[in-house]
Amino acid sequence: MPSDDRTAERRPRLTPPIADARRAVRAVLEPVDPAETGGVAPLALVALSGGADSLALAAATAFEAPRAGWLAGAVVVDHGLQAGSAEVAERAAAQARELGLDPVLVRRVEVPAGGDGPEASARAARYAALDEAAAETGAAVVLLGHTLDDQAETVLLGLARGAGGASLMGMPQRAGRYVRPLLGLRRQATRQACLDAGLDVWDDPHNTDPGYARVRVRERVLPVLEAELGPGIAEALARTAEQLREDEAAFDEQLEEFIEEICEPAEAGIAVSAAVLAANPAALRQRIIRHVVGSEFGVALSRVQTLEVARLVTDWHGQGPVALPGGAVATRAGAHVVFSATGATEILPHDH
Amino acid sequence: MPSDDRTAERRPRLTPPIADARRAVRAVLEPVDPAETGGVAPLALVALSGGADSLALAAATAFEAPRAGWLAGAVVVDHGLQAGSAEVAERAAAQARELGLDPVLVRRVEVPAGGDGPEASARAARYAALDEAAAETGAAVVLLGHTLDDQAETVLLGLARGAGGASLMGMPQRAGRYVRPLLGLRRQATRQACLDAGLDVWDDPHNTDPGYARVRVRERVLPVLEAELGPGIAEALARTAEQLREDEAAFDEQLEEFIEEICEPAEAGIAVSAAVLAANPAALRQRIIRHVVGSEFGVALSRVQTLEVARLVTDWHGQGPVALPGGAVATRAGAHVVFSATGATEILPHDH
Repeated sequence: MPSDDRTAERRPRLTPPIADARRAVRAVLEPVDPAETGGVAPLALVALSGGADSLALAAATAFEAPRAGWLAGAVVVDHGLQAGSAEVAERAAAQARELGLDPVLVRRVEVPAGGDGPEASARAARYAALDEAAAETGAAVVLLGHTLDDQAETVLLGLARGAGGASLMGMPQRAGRYVRPLLGLRRQATRQACLDAGLDVWDDPHNTDPGYARVRVRERVLPVLEAELGPGIAEALARTAEQLREDEAAFDEQLEEFIEEICEPAEAGIAVSAAVLAANPAALRQRIIRHVVGSEFGVALSRVQTLEVARLVTDWHGQGPVALPGGAVATRAGAHVVFSATGATEILPHDH
Repeated sequence: MPSDDRTAERRPRLTPPIADARRAVRAVLEPVDPAETGGVAPLALVALSGGADSLALAAATAFEAPRAGWLAGAVVVDHGLQAGSAEVAERAAAQARELGLDPVLVRRVEVPAGGDGPEASARAARYAALDEAAAETGAAVVLLGHTLDDQAETVLLGLARGAGGASLMGMPQRAGRYVRPLLGLRRQATRQACLDAGLDVWDDPHNTDPGYARVRVRERVLPVLEAELGPGIAEALARTAEQLREDEAAFDEQLEEFIEEICEPAEAGIAVSAAVLAANPAALRQRIIRHVVGSEFGVALSRVQTLEVARLVTDWHGQGPVALPGGAVATRAGAHVVFSATGATEILPHDH
């Protein structure tokens, strides 16, 4: 194939892992017609750590974006948690520029101690920085490098919560401006794609620190599951997450359809018809209860608490009010269950 | 407390594990008023292996049944898979009689080789024998000794299937005449209840044979999950199973409500309105597709196959028929998706 030397040198061999990563990115970058956008191409910003997953994503995005009429940039977040983190970030930024991404931003964040633990704090700081970078650059999407392995790990971490489908549905492929094109790819494939492309991968020492639950899941739990239940467990976990996410979306949609209708204003809260609660299947009844308490008082009910409220309808024998977290109560009052901050059960005249 | 010596000797100390097992049985044996049943007490038949779980269940049932106006019997199934299995069965039957259960049946079954593997074959033979014993004795319920640990193991085995909520919902507390009172109790508690009651427990060697996936889950997977994700994982798995079972029940109920309406007879199968399929959330759309194919052709669709059929509606661009297992096809024909054994797409006149 005739081409000038420089192009031939820089163009990586199109191996299956590289092709897979590109195909995955292509599937999420809807082709843009410049005539329709007034000549302004939308920007996809890759969240880049320099690790295999996000580096493979950056390379695939650099390749696919111009072909779909998109601009591609990158943002590197330096969490400042490790010695030399600034150099790691600069090196990743240089790789992004080398791949042709533009703009390339480096953001140093402060990760506060305490809170919900180091993983949660780092995560919150990271997403705040990504949000800010997206707003500044006007990025249409921020691409995240999470793989099928990350998804499987997330499901296993959710198992320990034991909160049903909601705790096992993993990460969405799209949530607002965030998109995860690589959720169908194994982590090993992204590493191979980087190798094939001659890209030097940074290995985050945190990824092997057993102080993190996620690392223990990756290094100790998943291998045991693979050995004892057979290979394909990571794929099975990811498949299950996808289906449970659909299930939750269906329940959300159903709830949205009728939640307004079934709620009446009460003196210090909300009243819900006991007959409606009783007529719904348990799965919806409990979601209605959790939704009302969550939106009215900003607290999440445990399963035990939710079931105790449900018994005001399913097993009504004159029992007293059910205490909710934060001091609110749920009380059966005639044909209604009243959720109230004060325990008052008076229902206000309906104004719609 | 004055009592004759014999009663005092035989009455076990009421320890917490014994009390828990009795309370669990009490919760499932609805008290019977003899006046309403014409003096005929219903019979609860305990499926007894002689292992700790079913032995604790038998003892609790022997205690609770007469107090609730029930009769209590037992059936011991001898699978004939181990040397001495007949003696094990006879010994369990003797324990049941000693506990005061009556009738006590022993059933020897043949477990055919092959099929879906030794566990599935033994299970099928066991339930056939239990069904037969229940029919013969006119038992109202058959009580099974499955514990919270069994439930957690079932969920983990389901993870490997990766079929969403349906593969993770474990065993129901009630299914027809089968009832599992001990699903909320840990296995260790049933063993302690037997110890406290002076009951000799039989330890099935199959329960430690790593040739069984369930044994590997019990001995190798669950301990790793407990160690890496924290204790309480078995309870979390059981809780999740319960919620996912409710979710599936809600979807089943919704499907039942409208499945008749949306299906029309077609020349060699069934037609479903494409608009209805499109209007439903993915979770319901895919359940409709699986339900129609399952009830019409008796085959189960994989997720990939289900999604391919769904794309006849969600991503319709003139694609051809989708081949289903067993030779049937799903075809988009105008406003319908036609599921047909032959590929014909003619819709028959609606007769209701």
